[in-house]
Amino acid sequence: MHQETHVTSSNIVRDIIIGMSDGLTVPFALTAGLSGVLDTNHLIIVSGLSEIAAGCISMGLGGFLAGQTEIEHYDAELKREYDEIEKVPDIERKEVEEIFMSMGVDAALSRQVTAQISQDKDKWVDFMMRFELGLDKPDKNRAYQSAITIALAYMAGGVIPLAPYLIFTDNQLGFYWSCIITILALVVFGYFKSRVTAQPLLKGTLKVAFTGILAAAAAYTIAKLIS
Amino acid sequence: MHQETHVTSSNIVRDIIIGMSDGLTVPFALTAGLSGVLDTNHLIIVSGLSEIAAGCISMGLGGFLAGQTEIEHYDAELKREYDEIEKVPDIERKEVEEIFMSMGVDAALSRQVTAQISQDKDKWVDFMMRFELGLDKPDKNRAYQSAITIALAYMAGGVIPLAPYLIFTDNQLGFYWSCIITILALVVFGYFKSRVTAQPLLKGTLKVAFTGILAAAAAYTIAKLIS
Repeated sequence: MHQETHVTSSNIVRDIIIGMSDGLTVPFALTAGLSGVLDTNHLIIVSGLSEIAAGCISMGLGGFLAGQTEIEHYDAELKREYDEIEKVPDIERKEVEEIFMSMGVDAALSRQVTAQISQDKDKWVDFMMRFELGLDKPDKNRAYQSAITIALAYMAGGVIPLAPYLIFTDNQLGFYWSCIITILALVVFGYFKSRVTAQPLLKGTLKVAFTGILAAAAAYTIAKLIS
Repeated sequence: MHQETHVTSSNIVRDIIIGMSDGLTVPFALTAGLSGVLDTNHLIIVSGLSEIAAGCISMGLGGFLAGQTEIEHYDAELKREYDEIEKVPDIERKEVEEIFMSMGVDAALSRQVTAQISQDKDKWVDFMMRFELGLDKPDKNRAYQSAITIALAYMAGGVIPLAPYLIFTDNQLGFYWSCIITILALVVFGYFKSRVTAQPLLKGTLKVAFTGILAAAAAYTIAKLIS
């Protein structure tokens, strides 16, 4: 039997990936950078936790507001399309016909299909939204859920690089262990991300690990240079 | 004359908005948080610059790799669709017919339209990509451009809250001025963002400013609590 196996990872998994990508990378890079110039772990922990708080809110609330805006934008365009098919139905019908002709349908048949679609106003507007404007209906509840998921994933990612500085009092030791467990976490995360998004496993894993390591190296270098 | 005024902000503007949103927020919040617990501006500047480096790379490189993955995913699905119309053309034709029937077109006409679309393999695959899978063709050059734009915008946003700590030696004074110019910058940025994305100006501006202020307040509170 023929089976369609296109990959569609769920929204919640996508949000976890978004939050954890940055959560594992930025606090790791920042604390690594500071460990090279600060003598006490205490300030590294303060910086790390401040960054996690800031990052959580910026990504979570930012994502929430972006989601809200998307809903408002969709609703505004929806209203506009209903207005247009009311006021200038012939122009809107012409637009539908042109979309079909661009798909390789001849003029006569395009007109017939358009006539059928435009009989039901809801389906007609739905067609314009998806095929003229390329807008999918956003889920009203997703903005909240998405914001919380991203923020929690950022937090979960962020505490991993921070933990060794809490355990070890020596900042060099904290730095080494932070590198070890974070790179390990990046590899595990990269592996699962690659599986979920159906990427080649080795390449996908290396991409994630490389991003985190490069960010940390840059932060470390900059901190060393200016201190 | 009837004119369509749907808003489509260009990709580069969208990337500037993505980078600057976080660039104005996270380094502002982090340095504000640290200003409450550090006596010297020097460490605030080191932390701020490390964060900007880490954030730039995480967002820029992360965006670049995500863009690459999107292209790979699109190409893989494209190949699969070409394979499918080759191997199981009847099933694929049935899928096209079902899409039309869901648009409100009757069975007979759906079959006719499908027959025409499926005459040209490229148009047929194109139809499946857009209307079955909801995938738009990603621009191959955009991943680079997008990464650089986001990283530069993050950097440009990030130096604003940092500048006062460079100018004033007193960290309290640095903090006050950082708040003043960053909130001003958030308001200006929020205003332009709202204009470009066609949101209500006041509400859109307040959203942006509020996110930055809340993130900074949280980072400040956390830094104070644990130090």
